[in-house]
Amino acid sequence: MNYRMTAYILGQIAILEAILLIPSFGIALGYGESATYLAFGITLVALLALGIPLVLKKPVKSTFHARGGFLVVAIAWIQLSLFGSLPFVISGAIPNFIDALFESVSAFTTTGASILIDPTTLPYSLAFWALTSQWIGGMGILVFVVAIIPKNDPAAVHLIRAESPGPQFGKLVSKLKFSARILYSIYIAITLLLIGLLLCGGVSLFDSITLAFGTASTGGYSFHPTSVASFNNLYVEIVISIFMVIFSVNFNLFFFILIGHFKQAIKNEELRWLFSIFFVSTLAISISNFAGGIYSSFADSLRYSSFQVISVGSTSGFTTADFSKWTGFSQAILLILMFIGGSSGSAAGGFKVSRLIIMLKTCLCDIRKTISPRSTTSVKMDGKLIPPALTASVSNYFGMYIIIILVSTLLISLVSNFNLFANFSSVVSATNNIGPAIGINELVSYANFPQFAKFILTLDMLIGRLEILPILLLFYPKAYRP
Amino acid sequence: MNYRMTAYILGQIAILEAILLIPSFGIALGYGESATYLAFGITLVALLALGIPLVLKKPVKSTFHARGGFLVVAIAWIQLSLFGSLPFVISGAIPNFIDALFESVSAFTTTGASILIDPTTLPYSLAFWALTSQWIGGMGILVFVVAIIPKNDPAAVHLIRAESPGPQFGKLVSKLKFSARILYSIYIAITLLLIGLLLCGGVSLFDSITLAFGTASTGGYSFHPTSVASFNNLYVEIVISIFMVIFSVNFNLFFFILIGHFKQAIKNEELRWLFSIFFVSTLAISISNFAGGIYSSFADSLRYSSFQVISVGSTSGFTTADFSKWTGFSQAILLILMFIGGSSGSAAGGFKVSRLIIMLKTCLCDIRKTISPRSTTSVKMDGKLIPPALTASVSNYFGMYIIIILVSTLLISLVSNFNLFANFSSVVSATNNIGPAIGINELVSYANFPQFAKFILTLDMLIGRLEILPILLLFYPKAYRP
Repeated sequence: MNYRMTAYILGQIAILEAILLIPSFGIALGYGESATYLAFGITLVALLALGIPLVLKKPVKSTFHARGGFLVVAIAWIQLSLFGSLPFVISGAIPNFIDALFESVSAFTTTGASILIDPTTLPYSLAFWALTSQWIGGMGILVFVVAIIPKNDPAAVHLIRAESPGPQFGKLVSKLKFSARILYSIYIAITLLLIGLLLCGGVSLFDSITLAFGTASTGGYSFHPTSVASFNNLYVEIVISIFMVIFSVNFNLFFFILIGHFKQAIKNEELRWLFSIFFVSTLAISISNFAGGIYSSFADSLRYSSFQVISVGSTSGFTTADFSKWTGFSQAILLILMFIGGSSGSAAGGFKVSRLIIMLKTCLCDIRKTISPRSTTSVKMDGKLIPPALTASVSNYFGMYIIIILVSTLLISLVSNFNLFANFSSVVSATNNIGPAIGINELVSYANFPQFAKFILTLDMLIGRLEILPILLLFYPKAYRP
Repeated sequence: MNYRMTAYILGQIAILEAILLIPSFGIALGYGESATYLAFGITLVALLALGIPLVLKKPVKSTFHARGGFLVVAIAWIQLSLFGSLPFVISGAIPNFIDALFESVSAFTTTGASILIDPTTLPYSLAFWALTSQWIGGMGILVFVVAIIPKNDPAAVHLIRAESPGPQFGKLVSKLKFSARILYSIYIAITLLLIGLLLCGGVSLFDSITLAFGTASTGGYSFHPTSVASFNNLYVEIVISIFMVIFSVNFNLFFFILIGHFKQAIKNEELRWLFSIFFVSTLAISISNFAGGIYSSFADSLRYSSFQVISVGSTSGFTTADFSKWTGFSQAILLILMFIGGSSGSAAGGFKVSRLIIMLKTCLCDIRKTISPRSTTSVKMDGKLIPPALTASVSNYFGMYIIIILVSTLLISLVSNFNLFANFSSVVSATNNIGPAIGINELVSYANFPQFAKFILTLDMLIGRLEILPILLLFYPKAYRP
């Protein structure tokens, strides 16, 4: 790897994090949260003390291998999370370091799980900081860095590829910097639109901003003890539902719509699958919950079921109902939705719909080959041929993904007081960056896990957000070779 | 597919099943179980009435496509199970047809799950029939057909390949018929040795035979209300443990030992992995159960833990302890062992150790390629190169396998009264042909599942035993083309 370039990028990220801290710092000052603004101040100074020396001299050689890109992204995210946890620790709001790290990683990876039983105990400024982390994590910190760097950097492609979710990375325009800017502009515009719509619905400014940040990032971190259920407001639920769907759609499609290629966007295979999955799951869960007597009217069942399907399917993790009381069938569907996740190139986590499509098509292709060995079958998506190297890497990804979930479940079972299913479901929730898990009693709190389990879940959240390889490479000494 | 050849093979299998029924018929007569011997008699006549006309004229063209082999194997196993269930239904011992089919498929696929709460209520002859089914299912009915056909048939290779467990099919000698005979001779010899050893330990003749059949097939069907725990005999436990390991080893290795290639057998990579998995799991579970206070002495913990690890790892499913009361960590390991299963080319079920090795190596290879894109990495096993088509098919197999488990869990959750985890664990147990599941209260009984759930589990057992493709092809109309 290119050490000097790595240091330079890490420096940029430190400074960027310092800038992102400023609004939260301002809120701490404004609300007079003394312990907290001191904590923000110390973190700010630490970030600048690290960042400024690193960016003073731009390295001459700015090229990167692919593996260098993976490593930089992994290290950057860990640095981001470590500094991000400092305000929680220093302010004393979450005195334990592992707890604070869990909270910080949960925010940056847009998981939205919390070790706090009652998130309303957090000072406003820290709540805002968690949501800022979540919002930036949704589109990606390195995508942001690439968007704001003044000149077009050849190293950037490896960084964005390593950070972007999904099996393929689609470049929108020839210059990567502009692609990154377009993506962030769309992200900001839709977030602002959502804030506006929530304000129109009578939601307070603070709640509107926090809800919008939680929705845009598909993080689902909520500062109400029972998440979105606290509002008990159909308008808010519908608006958030629509926007959760929007933010789990590949952002490239919005660009296509912007430049008038509406048909290309609508015909997108992943989009159609995503909508079909949401539609069928909503219908099945609504009927099952109504038939199971969970809700007395079908309208109620549809309301809570659709919200939860979209919330889990988009890996947001907002809740309006306690789904651990739902029918086993409904829970099974939710669990499968957790595995699938949203679209590649979106803010959502999970295995990704496009990977599922490629995997299913590859399996069907295999069956067809058995029937007619001489048939020239190949896997296509959106009419384009998928190269065999990509289908193989999707299958391998699935293998690693399941192994990581099983091994993490095993490790957590070593110390956890919950039953095996709750451990498994928490790991699934963390790895897919969702938040709430089926089978642990509290809606979204991971407070009752021992420290070691929290640490493993923290690692799982990072592994899930960065899609395995970057984090695995950290443990490969050979990857660090210059 | 070659219709006339298919009919001919199905005829052979019907006659073979009639022959296999004779000992059970004899026992029914001997014990004067009147309802039962009538049932056996009717089944015998039906089998002969179907089989004899079909084998009267050998088809001229006996060649087969690979897909024909898959289909014949699938149809043969279904025919086998349908007739195998008749004695249970006609005798009135299990009056419901779905229940009887579950019992019959559970036996032939060496799962050993039962819908009977107390298996001792079965007449001796029916118990013996279930165990005969299990024993023949362990090595394979088509392998048996190939072993006894007089001349060497070119179609046989597709049949054996479709029925043999594992990603690769190893031909021992140039003539397939002799390979099949060698395998069955070894299988019979080791089964007889086991019967002898159990008799030496003071076990009754009937119990010795039934235990040996249950062990050899890795079926684990037991005719004692609490399985092997009923004996409470350390000698029996140790002997069965050793033989469960033997029967989950690739049978080709025993042939290598027979012809003096001892080193080749011992150096086998899958064997070393299998032993390592058993050893590490035993150690981990023994310590966890002892530390968790499940057993008061470490010796006791080692005794029950080692037996259960081997029983689940070999996909036998005998029980000496109620592992639903074990620590979550121990249960997590057992669940992972259920997924892995035994060796390819053995009597055991599951995903197979060799597939796991290939999958892990393929994933590692993928990571290495990311680090050094120009490296010429390739997957090797036992020093030999694994062709990319095989590594791809292993990955696809894993994908289909997980999807089938998830979809089955979903379908069962639609009707089941158990919780989601119990449904999931039952599907895992059925698909991997194990028997007992974690989380359903009774040790080995599936009585409390509704009929639809039993039907899905029956299908899962067949899918697991025949390794997915044959059963999937049944639903592909194109596969039946001549």
